[in-house]
Amino acid sequence: MTIVVPIAWKDGAVEYLDQTKLPAAEVYRTTRDESEIAEAIKTLAIRGAPLIGIAAAYGIVLAMNRIRHVGRETVAMHFEQAHHLLATTRPTAVNLFWALDRMRQVFEQHRSDEIKRLCERLLKEAMAIHQEDAEMCERISEHGEKLLPAGATVLTHCNTGRLATGGRGTALGIIERAWELGALKNVYIAETRPLLQGARLTAWELARRGVPATLITDHTGAFLMQQGRINAVVVGADRIAANGDVANKVGTYSLAIAAHHHGIPFFVAAPSSSIDFETVRGSLIPIEERRVEEITTIAGTTIAPEHATAYAPAFDVTPYQLIAAIVTEHGVVQPPNAASLRSLRSAPSHRERVGVGT
Amino acid sequence: MTIVVPIAWKDGAVEYLDQTKLPAAEVYRTTRDESEIAEAIKTLAIRGAPLIGIAAAYGIVLAMNRIRHVGRETVAMHFEQAHHLLATTRPTAVNLFWALDRMRQVFEQHRSDEIKRLCERLLKEAMAIHQEDAEMCERISEHGEKLLPAGATVLTHCNTGRLATGGRGTALGIIERAWELGALKNVYIAETRPLLQGARLTAWELARRGVPATLITDHTGAFLMQQGRINAVVVGADRIAANGDVANKVGTYSLAIAAHHHGIPFFVAAPSSSIDFETVRGSLIPIEERRVEEITTIAGTTIAPEHATAYAPAFDVTPYQLIAAIVTEHGVVQPPNAASLRSLRSAPSHRERVGVGT
Repeated sequence: MTIVVPIAWKDGAVEYLDQTKLPAAEVYRTTRDESEIAEAIKTLAIRGAPLIGIAAAYGIVLAMNRIRHVGRETVAMHFEQAHHLLATTRPTAVNLFWALDRMRQVFEQHRSDEIKRLCERLLKEAMAIHQEDAEMCERISEHGEKLLPAGATVLTHCNTGRLATGGRGTALGIIERAWELGALKNVYIAETRPLLQGARLTAWELARRGVPATLITDHTGAFLMQQGRINAVVVGADRIAANGDVANKVGTYSLAIAAHHHGIPFFVAAPSSSIDFETVRGSLIPIEERRVEEITTIAGTTIAPEHATAYAPAFDVTPYQLIAAIVTEHGVVQPPNAASLRSLRSAPSHRERVGVGT
Repeated sequence: MTIVVPIAWKDGAVEYLDQTKLPAAEVYRTTRDESEIAEAIKTLAIRGAPLIGIAAAYGIVLAMNRIRHVGRETVAMHFEQAHHLLATTRPTAVNLFWALDRMRQVFEQHRSDEIKRLCERLLKEAMAIHQEDAEMCERISEHGEKLLPAGATVLTHCNTGRLATGGRGTALGIIERAWELGALKNVYIAETRPLLQGARLTAWELARRGVPATLITDHTGAFLMQQGRINAVVVGADRIAANGDVANKVGTYSLAIAAHHHGIPFFVAAPSSSIDFETVRGSLIPIEERRVEEITTIAGTTIAPEHATAYAPAFDVTPYQLIAAIVTEHGVVQPPNAASLRSLRSAPSHRERVGVGT
């Protein structure tokens, strides 16, 4: 079993796995062009809230590397152009903006350095974001695993593993760790329509890892809960509002209601960088709408009548009342609400621990 | 706009629409062989609880027509063989067994007739089952339409229209009638994984009919409810237990929980032949499991890793407590429970009204 690495910095370029080709083919691409990174994020070749933050940070480095020899007065303009290009790829996951903010702070602090030195600083920060994410995944999986009962069968949605992060994953990191500790019986994977990240990516990751898993359609989860076959639901987050409402892959809310109805704990796992303290509640989170073709066609085959109207939100919002706990690298917020999340904010933040531009 | 006719008796043969080819192609097939009917039911070329009852009845006629010239002593054996072949196609929808029971009663009553006369009796009964279903759809749509608020936006699941019945449909009949009366604003169609009857069939039917409709993935319904965009959910039923629990296409239960959570009425529409008074509660209804390939492949493309384990129930069970009303041809059972359904049983049954073998 080789560990999958969805993104890496190699010899001044970014190598990334084109996740749209999985599970049929494992295609790696190499680029020195930040616009290819932006396109890869838009098309979901690179996806997963933590991973798009990492990719955007490397995208800034690519952009600045390329303009190494232009006059200093145009450097800021180039930074802003690259920042804008990468920031407008996807609106919901806040990690993207968080990572770009970190890059901006380094840029602001070192903009008077010579360009070569500035680029080194930016690369160092991007690599720090990447490496810290791997460490956060470890902490999240340690904290989260303790929430699962021994011999648990869990349900998960979308993909939150190595393909979505810089490490072993958030929700899937918890699941992987529970399995390593012998505390996991089975994983039900919701296929995650429309783009089938559960079927294509999570089933692929867990199979490589040897974790027992069963694929289901998204709406089969409630039926399994009714039969007493699910002990917990564990999902990731694209953005967590200040009150604990969670924007995550569409279908999450439906599963949360069903878990609540059956008294089954519903856990959200995400790095603290997914918490947006500026957004007071979930209804204020911008929800990306995708092209209707993502619903009306599957793998190139049209499955609906021509000109069918469709509605394709990428995310939905789960109110904090339905969430038993939010697991971050700093620990477990249980139950999540505005007060408990605020107390997390005063915990040593990962930015403070690592420092900006040091 | 031509009205689609999914099954018809023509010159001693059954002509049926192969629904697996929709919406790409409208392919009609003709057969005089009951084993082709059985296979068409198994593969969902013919589907929808009322329609498979109608098809099975015609299947009996085909079987008996073919043996018209054999000795009388083998007639009963042939009937039993055909009955068994058709009864073992799909286990959940009770209309199949109900229709075959009607055919058996005619057979028992007239088995001493000459074979030609017996076959005429059987054909008459099959045609009665077919015609009565069309009338039941009219009654169901009349009763059910009154339950919807003016200007309603409704959510429906799977396909319950002309493709699923002998008439205008059950849940979709209600929706069509509401639209004809100007009382409907929009229909959200859950695509209905794995076999996409919502996307392939319901979207196709409503488009032909000119009814405004929007296709969504199955788990987007809860998000629409949260936004106040759904006034009612209307679905069909494959079998209704004596206590009002409803077995219907997998995903129905998930939608019922979400509707309950948001205080949105959840209506089930079905002919009284879908009620199985011998089965006291839903957990006793046999739930068909389909091949895992129905999940792991879509339109010929594999969407999951090789050898992925999957669980593919065709149906789930919604407890009566989550159902605001069950709409039958005899009227509205509101709220449904063992007592209210029993009172329906004492209403003039459709068999009594029409008579058996007359």
